[in-house]
Amino acid sequence: MSVRIVGTGLIGTSIGLALSHKGFRVLLSDPSPTAQALAADLGAGQIDDDVAADAIFVAAPPDVAASVVAEQLKQWPSAVVADVASVKQQVADAVRALVPPEQLHRYVGSHPMAGRERSGAVAAQADLFEGRTWVVCPQQETDRHAVQLVQELAHATGAAIETMPADEHDAAVAVVSHIPQLAASVVAAQLRDLPDAAIALSGGGIRDVTRIAESDPMMWTQILAGNAAAVSPVLDRVVEQLGAVAGSLRRLAADSSAAEGSRGEVARLISDGQLGHARIPGKHGAAPATYATVIVPIPDEPGSFARLFNDVGDAGINLEDLRMEHGVGAMVGLVELSVLPGVVDRLRDVLEDKGWSVHE
Amino acid sequence: MSVRIVGTGLIGTSIGLALSHKGFRVLLSDPSPTAQALAADLGAGQIDDDVAADAIFVAAPPDVAASVVAEQLKQWPSAVVADVASVKQQVADAVRALVPPEQLHRYVGSHPMAGRERSGAVAAQADLFEGRTWVVCPQQETDRHAVQLVQELAHATGAAIETMPADEHDAAVAVVSHIPQLAASVVAAQLRDLPDAAIALSGGGIRDVTRIAESDPMMWTQILAGNAAAVSPVLDRVVEQLGAVAGSLRRLAADSSAAEGSRGEVARLISDGQLGHARIPGKHGAAPATYATVIVPIPDEPGSFARLFNDVGDAGINLEDLRMEHGVGAMVGLVELSVLPGVVDRLRDVLEDKGWSVHE
Repeated sequence: MSVRIVGTGLIGTSIGLALSHKGFRVLLSDPSPTAQALAADLGAGQIDDDVAADAIFVAAPPDVAASVVAEQLKQWPSAVVADVASVKQQVADAVRALVPPEQLHRYVGSHPMAGRERSGAVAAQADLFEGRTWVVCPQQETDRHAVQLVQELAHATGAAIETMPADEHDAAVAVVSHIPQLAASVVAAQLRDLPDAAIALSGGGIRDVTRIAESDPMMWTQILAGNAAAVSPVLDRVVEQLGAVAGSLRRLAADSSAAEGSRGEVARLISDGQLGHARIPGKHGAAPATYATVIVPIPDEPGSFARLFNDVGDAGINLEDLRMEHGVGAMVGLVELSVLPGVVDRLRDVLEDKGWSVHE
Repeated sequence: MSVRIVGTGLIGTSIGLALSHKGFRVLLSDPSPTAQALAADLGAGQIDDDVAADAIFVAAPPDVAASVVAEQLKQWPSAVVADVASVKQQVADAVRALVPPEQLHRYVGSHPMAGRERSGAVAAQADLFEGRTWVVCPQQETDRHAVQLVQELAHATGAAIETMPADEHDAAVAVVSHIPQLAASVVAAQLRDLPDAAIALSGGGIRDVTRIAESDPMMWTQILAGNAAAVSPVLDRVVEQLGAVAGSLRRLAADSSAAEGSRGEVARLISDGQLGHARIPGKHGAAPATYATVIVPIPDEPGSFARLFNDVGDAGINLEDLRMEHGVGAMVGLVELSVLPGVVDRLRDVLEDKGWSVHE
C-alpha cells in the first residue's frame, strides 16, 4: 500500500517516518522544495508528485488544510484523503463547501493528539504518535472503507484510535484541552507583575496548574479561534461560575460574617471540581483508579533517582504514576510514587528497608 | 529550650515530632485528651499543662486560632506565641482585638506551607516540613528576639524560612495558591457531566491543570473565605480577562472573519501567561532555568523505571525534574526527563546506547 504525505512539517514528516519504518511506500510533497528534500533525506519517503497513492495525509497548516484536501480529492480520484488539523468541524465545513458532493465519501477528518515545542521536518520523529491518541472523525458521507484505511494507518504509527463525529471531537477538546489552556494562561498571567518575594512562595500546585502556559501564543490563537463555536459556551460557563465565586468573596471581604450562602457558593465550586476531577481516566485509559501514594525525599545529587527506582524495581512493584515536588531553598527533592493500593505496604517496607524515609 | 504545642492535630503533632527529634523539650496540650495522648504516644512530646515554655505554637483550627493565641499570651507572660494558620492578616487582626497592646511584642504569625490529605495526629510526620517553605510574619510590635526564635524553630524542622508582613503573605498566597486552586476546580467542574468518550481524550495538560482539584472543599472554603480580601481583587481581574476572551470567541464563533482585534485579545492572554509562567523559580528556589527535556517511552512493567533511572544515574547526570505522561489505551508510558542544557546531549547518548528510544 502507498501513502502520500502533503506537507512535510513536524506532523507530516513524522507520519512519513513512522509509516516508512513499517514498510509502507511513502510519497512526499510540499510547496517548499527544501522542506520536501529534507523530509526525504530524513527517511520519511520519496519525492514523487506523479504516482497515485491509496491514501493521502494532508498535513498543511490549519488555515489552508481544507483547500489542500479539496485539491487532492480532485487530483487523485480514487485516493482516500485525510487531514490532521487539531480542530475538525471548521475543516470539514470548508471541505464540504469546496468539493462536489460525490467526492466527500473519500474524505476523513483526523487529529493525531501529539506535538512538540519545535516545528518542521527536522523535529520529526518516527515514534511521535506512539502511545498518543489519534482521533478519527468520519463525515456522514464517508465510506466505511475510507475510515478503516485511515484508522489502520494511524494505528500503524503506534497511536491509539478514538472514532467520533467532528462536532463531538471539537466539543471534547474544548473542555479537556482548550479550556485548561486558557485557565493555565490566565493564572500564569497574574504572575507577570508580582513581586519576587511573592513568586518565591510558588509551590507544586501553581507549577502544575500553569505548566502548559508556556505554549506558543500564535498556535493557540489559531486553535482557539478555529474552535470558537465549541469553546465559547464552555468559557461563558467558566466565567459565570468564577464570577459567582468572585461575588461571594467580595461579600465576605466586606463583612466576614456574611450569610452562609457566600461560603456555600465557594464550597460548591470546589466540590464540583472534586467530582469532575475524579472522572479523569487513569494510566492507559483505564477506569479511574484510586492509587496509593507515598512521598520519598531524595538528596539533590546524581544517582538519587536511580537508587530509588532501582529499589522499587527490585521489589517487582509497578509504578502507576510519579511526580516530583520542588521545595524552595532546600537541597532535597520530594518524589511522589503512586502504586495500586494492594502493593503500597510492600513498597513502604521495601523502601524503608533500603534506608529511604517514606511519607504517606 | 522548651516548646509548647497547643493543638495536636496534623501540623501541631508534626512540629512536636520534628522538634523532639532535634532534642528540644516539647510540651503538648489539646482540648481533646485522646488527641493529646495519641500525640504523646507517637513521640511528639510530653503532656504537661503547668510548665512554662520559651515558645508556644498554636496549631488550633483557623477559626479559633486567634482566641487560643490570646489565651496563651495571657497565661504565659514571658513566652513567645506563634500561630500556624494559612491566612495571616485575619488572625493578626483578631489577636490585636483580643490582647492588650503590651503583649503584642510576643506574638508572631507564621505559615508552614505543608499539609497532607489525611488529618489528625495519626497522620503526623517528623519530616512533614522538610524542604517546604515556612513563612514568618512579624507584626509591627513584634520583638526581634521573638521573630528569631520562631525562625530558628521553624528552621529546625527542616523548613526554608521566608519572612514578610502578613498582608504581603496573604496577597502572595492569593495569587500563587488560592487562585490556582479556583482555576483547577472550575476546569475540573466542567468534566462533571461530560460524556465518557469526551473524557477519554484527556491528556497530560488537563491532568496537570486539575491535579489540585481533588482538595477538600471544607478546608478550601475556610481558606478562601479567610483570605477573601486578598483573593477577591485578583479573582475579579481573572474573571474580567477571561470574560474579554469569551467575548472575542463569541464574536469569532458568529463570524470567523471578525476583526483582528478578537484574535489579538486571545493572543494577549496566552502571551501574558507565557511571560508570567517564565517567572516561576526553578528547583530549590533557584532563578528560573531553562531545562532541556527529553521524552522516553517505557514499557508498562515492573522494573522499567528502575532500568531507566539506573542508566541515567550511571552516567552521573542529575535530573532537575521529571514527569510521567499517560497515553490513552496504549501499554506504554512516556517519561519526561529535564536536565541542565549542558548535559542533555550526553543524556541522549547514554540512553540510546542502553537501547532506550529518546525523543526531544
